[in-house]
Amino acid sequence: MRLTLLGTGDAAGMPLYGCNCDRCTMVKVNAEHQRGPTSALLEVDNKRYLIDAGLMDIADRFPASTLDGIILTHFHADHVQGLFHLRWGIDQKIPVYCPPDSSGCADLFKHPGILDFQVQRKFETIDLGALKLTPVPLIHSKPTFGYLMEHNGHSIAYLVDTKDIPPRTEEFLSKKLLNAVVLDTSAPPGVESGNHNNLDNTLMLQQRIDAKKTVMTHIGHDFDIWLSHHHKSLPEGLIPGFDNYIVFP
Amino acid sequence: MRLTLLGTGDAAGMPLYGCNCDRCTMVKVNAEHQRGPTSALLEVDNKRYLIDAGLMDIADRFPASTLDGIILTHFHADHVQGLFHLRWGIDQKIPVYCPPDSSGCADLFKHPGILDFQVQRKFETIDLGALKLTPVPLIHSKPTFGYLMEHNGHSIAYLVDTKDIPPRTEEFLSKKLLNAVVLDTSAPPGVESGNHNNLDNTLMLQQRIDAKKTVMTHIGHDFDIWLSHHHKSLPEGLIPGFDNYIVFP
Repeated sequence: MRLTLLGTGDAAGMPLYGCNCDRCTMVKVNAEHQRGPTSALLEVDNKRYLIDAGLMDIADRFPASTLDGIILTHFHADHVQGLFHLRWGIDQKIPVYCPPDSSGCADLFKHPGILDFQVQRKFETIDLGALKLTPVPLIHSKPTFGYLMEHNGHSIAYLVDTKDIPPRTEEFLSKKLLNAVVLDTSAPPGVESGNHNNLDNTLMLQQRIDAKKTVMTHIGHDFDIWLSHHHKSLPEGLIPGFDNYIVFP
Repeated sequence: MRLTLLGTGDAAGMPLYGCNCDRCTMVKVNAEHQRGPTSALLEVDNKRYLIDAGLMDIADRFPASTLDGIILTHFHADHVQGLFHLRWGIDQKIPVYCPPDSSGCADLFKHPGILDFQVQRKFETIDLGALKLTPVPLIHSKPTFGYLMEHNGHSIAYLVDTKDIPPRTEEFLSKKLLNAVVLDTSAPPGVESGNHNNLDNTLMLQQRIDAKKTVMTHIGHDFDIWLSHHHKSLPEGLIPGFDNYIVFP
């Protein structure tokens, strides 16, 4: 099982459109510091699953028949906007595992095209070959699932987008030996960020979930700047994600 | 006044994701034959207006403060999907001229960010400097405006997406001396295409509107193939658009 972060930014991304701060100015010319929409690629036994579909160039990155499924956390535009184009293809149907959300996003449900939306139920594990995928509810402004991925004795939790996590999700995860947690951390310490964790929330969750490592994603503009100055002050095992970072192995 | 087509494809575009026909195979490696989401750039007196926002890389093509406005024909995803990211920038507000459509697309109205949606009324001309812009109703599955653009004695009608045009729109346009019409033509002759013109519809409209030239856009996969074989059989003044084609002057 290999998990690679494809995007680690919030909906605005880095650089922030219209921003001329020192950080954005640097990021504009150094593509390796850019942050695309939060998303990841899960590879297991020659199968490839895209986790969230906010990338605008899915068709170019993943030619037809190279994706075995798409795993959606929720239906905010920055997590599904890449599907608006992809759906009109003529590839074999692509399973899209998603939380129950009757409104979805725009007309994706009305015109799914090649997308085969498969609504999941919380805590009900599905088997994708040797991969076990379990949706766990999160706390966000739309119905949102995190996912526990288990394969060959290894476990990773992907918890995006969320502010804190519900008690049942915490209880469920506490029984697992987690190799890694990927966690929504949008804002610097002391800064409220709506329905997303800031670093204070993440520091508490790191203690409570107790994985071998905690990788932060969905990093907003101000937190990106904060990290560029303070990343050395982070506790052991807490890692700022970046685009193309390999979470596991 | 200069009008350039930026995209001339339908929602699926060319190449069609998952298609291995001869045409798509050729188009994949010859970028000049690719068709992006139907859209255009209108440049008048050092001002730049984007017509429809389905391109996925608006932020890269148009750095902050280089767009004076966005003119929307309607709120289908392939005409607005590029706004989901752009809106979260911190540029000065970008006026977005649009038809009345209370549902819009996803949460664009709830979270407009830097977009300043300005709902227009049919046949009511707005003055943008020396440019006169008049919304004209079209016939589509969502409330849709075409636009008449008039500047310095020249006139262009942009009629996308539509199947045929309403009598009042035809009557209004028939009083104008049109240098060009850009017209939704999605499908080959004899093939029904839902709420879009096929070539039969366009041939009739070309006669009825009587502009100096008629440029076809929103070209679907099958019509693209048809054109690759039959473009020489088109009547004088009827032109297949392509990405980056300059409609006027």
